[in-house]
Amino acid sequence: MQKTQLLGFGTIGTGVVQVFQKNAEVIHQRTGIEMRLTRVADLDITTDRGVSLPEGVLTTDADAVLTDPNIDIVIELIGGYKPALQFILKAIANGKHIVTANKALMAVHGQEIIEAASRAKVDVMFEAAVGGGIPVISAIKENLCVNRFSTVIGILNGTCNFILTKMTNQGSDFAPVLAEAQQLGYAEADPTFDIAGVDTAHKIALLSALCFGTRIDFNQVYTEGITQISAVDIDFANQMGYKIKLLAIGKQCDGAIEVRVHPTMIPKSYQLAEVDGVFNAVRLSGDFLGPAMLYGSGAGMAATASAVMGDVMAIGRSICSGAVGRTPIMGYCQDQIVDQPLRPMSEITSHYYLRFTAVDCTGVLAKISTILGQHDISIQSMIQPESHAPDSVPIVLMTHEAQEANIVNALKEIDLLDIIRQPTRLIRVEHDLD
Amino acid sequence: MQKTQLLGFGTIGTGVVQVFQKNAEVIHQRTGIEMRLTRVADLDITTDRGVSLPEGVLTTDADAVLTDPNIDIVIELIGGYKPALQFILKAIANGKHIVTANKALMAVHGQEIIEAASRAKVDVMFEAAVGGGIPVISAIKENLCVNRFSTVIGILNGTCNFILTKMTNQGSDFAPVLAEAQQLGYAEADPTFDIAGVDTAHKIALLSALCFGTRIDFNQVYTEGITQISAVDIDFANQMGYKIKLLAIGKQCDGAIEVRVHPTMIPKSYQLAEVDGVFNAVRLSGDFLGPAMLYGSGAGMAATASAVMGDVMAIGRSICSGAVGRTPIMGYCQDQIVDQPLRPMSEITSHYYLRFTAVDCTGVLAKISTILGQHDISIQSMIQPESHAPDSVPIVLMTHEAQEANIVNALKEIDLLDIIRQPTRLIRVEHDLD
Repeated sequence: MQKTQLLGFGTIGTGVVQVFQKNAEVIHQRTGIEMRLTRVADLDITTDRGVSLPEGVLTTDADAVLTDPNIDIVIELIGGYKPALQFILKAIANGKHIVTANKALMAVHGQEIIEAASRAKVDVMFEAAVGGGIPVISAIKENLCVNRFSTVIGILNGTCNFILTKMTNQGSDFAPVLAEAQQLGYAEADPTFDIAGVDTAHKIALLSALCFGTRIDFNQVYTEGITQISAVDIDFANQMGYKIKLLAIGKQCDGAIEVRVHPTMIPKSYQLAEVDGVFNAVRLSGDFLGPAMLYGSGAGMAATASAVMGDVMAIGRSICSGAVGRTPIMGYCQDQIVDQPLRPMSEITSHYYLRFTAVDCTGVLAKISTILGQHDISIQSMIQPESHAPDSVPIVLMTHEAQEANIVNALKEIDLLDIIRQPTRLIRVEHDLD
Repeated sequence: MQKTQLLGFGTIGTGVVQVFQKNAEVIHQRTGIEMRLTRVADLDITTDRGVSLPEGVLTTDADAVLTDPNIDIVIELIGGYKPALQFILKAIANGKHIVTANKALMAVHGQEIIEAASRAKVDVMFEAAVGGGIPVISAIKENLCVNRFSTVIGILNGTCNFILTKMTNQGSDFAPVLAEAQQLGYAEADPTFDIAGVDTAHKIALLSALCFGTRIDFNQVYTEGITQISAVDIDFANQMGYKIKLLAIGKQCDGAIEVRVHPTMIPKSYQLAEVDGVFNAVRLSGDFLGPAMLYGSGAGMAATASAVMGDVMAIGRSICSGAVGRTPIMGYCQDQIVDQPLRPMSEITSHYYLRFTAVDCTGVLAKISTILGQHDISIQSMIQPESHAPDSVPIVLMTHEAQEANIVNALKEIDLLDIIRQPTRLIRVEHDLD
């Protein structure tokens, strides 16, 4: 029998308790392992979560239990950096295996945790940290491990995708849809972490590290959220055959790695464009695999608990068969992981959607396109709809592939022109998925 | 170092050799294991496959090498029943672990292989048997193992999906598109196995066994191919908001298991409806996971080789860590797998698309709907387009949920009416995916 301690009895923690209680039979049938949840620690042990635990299981003293020699596996669902990191390090020091859903912690303090785990010869698993119930981390580390990955692209934040989907379907602007999402419980009271793209950045930092065998300095990940997306840009995207998604992009090309998060236009015909609402998806491209996509519930109590418990059982199997450490924590043997700086944003290339707001007179397009041309930017298509504003007109351009630095410099110059009424909107466009 | 023998140097075998040759470095970085391909056996060792092997590796004598004590893992890519089964059983008897892409063999003779492997304490893996490069088998057995699955639904045959996609996009009938698929190499010279649904049935038998923990008698799997699908049905489906796909369906509901393969109408808005061309996808629904979908290349040299080699490395890891048998071959402990008869087709319920071909006179719909009503079948929607045939008119009905036996009996009765000119076409409709 293996004994498990749960730290953090919130929503996902409650889901984990439910899996233990409802599916013990199927777990035993599949693994032959009897897994017991012997301790559940939370500061709040009075709120009714709708599940009942045997006497003595619930405790407020997480710290004390971490040294209990009867515990084999510690599940950390507290979230955030403190005290989660200290608890995890203490558990590892006491020989416990770790399962966590904490993307922020793994993205920022992963290295420290992994080194401690290596010394203590324990496993650390974090499938639930990315994509909720979708088994993408395991797929990269195990089944697809013979591939060299060129791209890993994801829709990884349910809140953002819910908001963008609503904005797209209703033609609404950002603020009212955010309010609606908050009412429905799909966005936090303070939604900054989600809508600013930080949560997505944590996740793509982890996926990129797993795919490319490199340590990713989270602070280098370019992160742009969805707060600037407007109904008008979604409408123009639609007219041109695109949808706007908050994409997390990891690429390995021309000897460098790109990891970035930003609103991105993708052709409507792409599978990723069909990922709507709170669902998540990850698209992987491997040299033998080709393209593949994994899709599912990106968050929520039940799906995340499924992933957490999948990890718990994997560790259970490893303990039983004496195979702890069978698969390296980050998918590459520790001594094979390299530090590789990310390609600076100025050096990436992309197609770009540019929306200029200009005075309504002749010669404007000529002035804009001249400056673009001087910066090596060529135009792929253009729409110039009738204006509804009294003194300005939108001009929407889609560029061919261009370098980000050139785009930034050109826009700086263009936005200084007296014919330009508002700062130009830029949205990157992805349509060369291999 | 671990040594591998490959049986069958065809297309996928060549892909496997390429993985060994091109990606040895990344495999070593990820696993720390040095894996060598020491023997490749095929009856034909003279054809140039575009890869070169060291002297002494290639042999025509597969059988002799199976007893070589230096070989740890045997990869079987011969396909079919004979001599693949004999080779595998001999390899197992000699303590070799098995990786195979052979769905027919696993679906029909899996039990014999698994029992032999259990006795010999070796692993048998077959990820490449279903869905090409998509890691679905492993997901069911490992990451998602804490779930009770209610449905597993797949598009599992690239040939059929290519043909149906072409028919849909071009408005063509079956025969010319099949010919085109054969020219392009997407269909075999004798395509029966694919287009009759047999290949799909092998795959869903395996997936259902893995999901539901039961032995599936392959002969009980209802199997209907795509040869009867016509452009006219695809067009009506489209008008009503549906696409026609060859779906493989495994369901566990009301205490019984259904496993069936047939052309199926699904709403265009479903993710599965977007799976086009030679791509495959599997949609799983688990009690905690909720719905999830895995999508990717369903066949082809490279993607299938990726899956084969994923299995080879998993076994390699298990050998190195002493964890052979860590995960049961069919996802459930052998003594927990039950024999459960499948629900007979007459007892399933579904929505149905019915296309009647009737004389063009008043009262026809009344007669049809009276008989349907007498068999407890109610109509959800109807379209009656103008006829282009001189003496008959199509009447297209979509039913509410009905029992298959009632539908069959009603159609028998209706098709005997003198107002009916041709046997009625029936296509099942799936739109209650949970």
